[in-house]
Amino acid sequence: MTRAAARPVVRVEHGAARVEPDLVAREAPLTVDLRSGADGAAQTAGILMRTPGDDVDLVRGWLFTERLIGGVGDIVSIDGPGEEGTPDAERVIVTVADSVNLDHVLRHRSLTPTSACGLCGRVAIDRLDAGGAAAVSPAGADSRWPSSLIAGLPAALLTAQTVFAATGGLHAAGLFDDTGGIQFVREDIGRHNAVDKVIGAALGAGRLPDECPILVVSGRVAFEIVQKAAVAGHRAVVAVGAPSDLAIDAARSAGLTLVGFARDGRFNVYARAERIAAGAPVPAA
Amino acid sequence: MTRAAARPVVRVEHGAARVEPDLVAREAPLTVDLRSGADGAAQTAGILMRTPGDDVDLVRGWLFTERLIGGVGDIVSIDGPGEEGTPDAERVIVTVADSVNLDHVLRHRSLTPTSACGLCGRVAIDRLDAGGAAAVSPAGADSRWPSSLIAGLPAALLTAQTVFAATGGLHAAGLFDDTGGIQFVREDIGRHNAVDKVIGAALGAGRLPDECPILVVSGRVAFEIVQKAAVAGHRAVVAVGAPSDLAIDAARSAGLTLVGFARDGRFNVYARAERIAAGAPVPAA
Repeated sequence: MTRAAARPVVRVEHGAARVEPDLVAREAPLTVDLRSGADGAAQTAGILMRTPGDDVDLVRGWLFTERLIGGVGDIVSIDGPGEEGTPDAERVIVTVADSVNLDHVLRHRSLTPTSACGLCGRVAIDRLDAGGAAAVSPAGADSRWPSSLIAGLPAALLTAQTVFAATGGLHAAGLFDDTGGIQFVREDIGRHNAVDKVIGAALGAGRLPDECPILVVSGRVAFEIVQKAAVAGHRAVVAVGAPSDLAIDAARSAGLTLVGFARDGRFNVYARAERIAAGAPVPAA
Repeated sequence: MTRAAARPVVRVEHGAARVEPDLVAREAPLTVDLRSGADGAAQTAGILMRTPGDDVDLVRGWLFTERLIGGVGDIVSIDGPGEEGTPDAERVIVTVADSVNLDHVLRHRSLTPTSACGLCGRVAIDRLDAGGAAAVSPAGADSRWPSSLIAGLPAALLTAQTVFAATGGLHAAGLFDDTGGIQFVREDIGRHNAVDKVIGAALGAGRLPDECPILVVSGRVAFEIVQKAAVAGHRAVVAVGAPSDLAIDAARSAGLTLVGFARDGRFNVYARAERIAAGAPVPAA
């Protein structure tokens, strides 16, 4: 399973060009078929444009964070994908428990088709208490993570990335424990896929949610990343990039600590800041 | 229409925290309903998680680049969204020409529901000649753009962005003419939305494709951005970030010049390099 591919490139600098080999991130479709029982007819639940690799994690995580299944126990087996170059290389078949109402699952998805990056199938907007309570507050008595722990997470994630350095083209997601130790890391060209892969990996290992409270992502945080983190039971999302207003409101509503712009030893806390212990007095808001 | 929202933030640096007001990019769902004729029943074609603003451009561009309509002539009217704070603020109703087979359009989408960022509804993978001809070649006699023009595009796009500087949270897409002049620029929290908005704006103004040959995007380039650019008739995609292998292969297949890592006066050309005139001899590949 190769996550980077060679392509020739013309590098242009100050008007001068040279042709070189290059490595770029791979992207290929993965069709996810569902069937109820080994004899059931398979129906396509989705086509994911993903970077090949960790596909079983991806599918497990995607089914879970999109709430197409209630838990890992609903999955009997995930078969495939086949070897690269074969017709089955871009397809997995998920056999779900008889108790899963497959027609309901598939209809639920098809009723709200979507295009936007960041939505992916359906929105639990109706569950969102966007008003929320005053959720950004100074560090308090129940803080669980020192600020130095949070500040160090992006560098730890970057160190664990293997393909990004070669291609510059992959998002990463990592799961960390309460001591800042990295438990799982996955990469993908799609930021949502990277999150689904890492959650799927932890879910498959029976490590969710308590052993992996902190989700760290290499990019920005829109609503759906927070939604996925809430479904997975994480207690914090730490992002290198910016959050949206809806991501902030969703984090407050779900009780998630939301950190953005975590880089160069600094970070911003947008929700549930009381879980982070800063070392200096905090002025009143 | 506000594209940035105020939220309180706790800024943590070197262990010291301070609470400040902050501006973040907005994100809100927009439901796109289609109806055939003013008396037809409206059916939901999709829910876009987008940054409010330029919604008519977004919907026009999305319908077009996703090939849900054949051209702007298929759109009779786009009504909404209503004023912010009203129930209609997150919905548009598109009246399409009687000639559009609405059932076919909606069924086509629902048959291939997807989750992945970068796919958005369906894949024209079957149309993709991923093998392609050798498409990266040195600058040749038919070059149309000097390398200095290409190198200057990202800075021109950044200058035209209005919200990014305030929030750091928005992707931008710009359309440029053959002289490097910026014709349209749009921003959104979703990179696909930014592209749909800018294409929708040009389409609505009757300026596609010849007056806007170059699409410039602030982020990475996956398959779907190239697909949208090909549908819109652009001749080049210039990205600040990295391309995927499938994006490169799609660009070669579609005859699009594909530029990545365009920053600091340098750039890489991954497809159809012959359209760009570099100023120095190019070694053989």
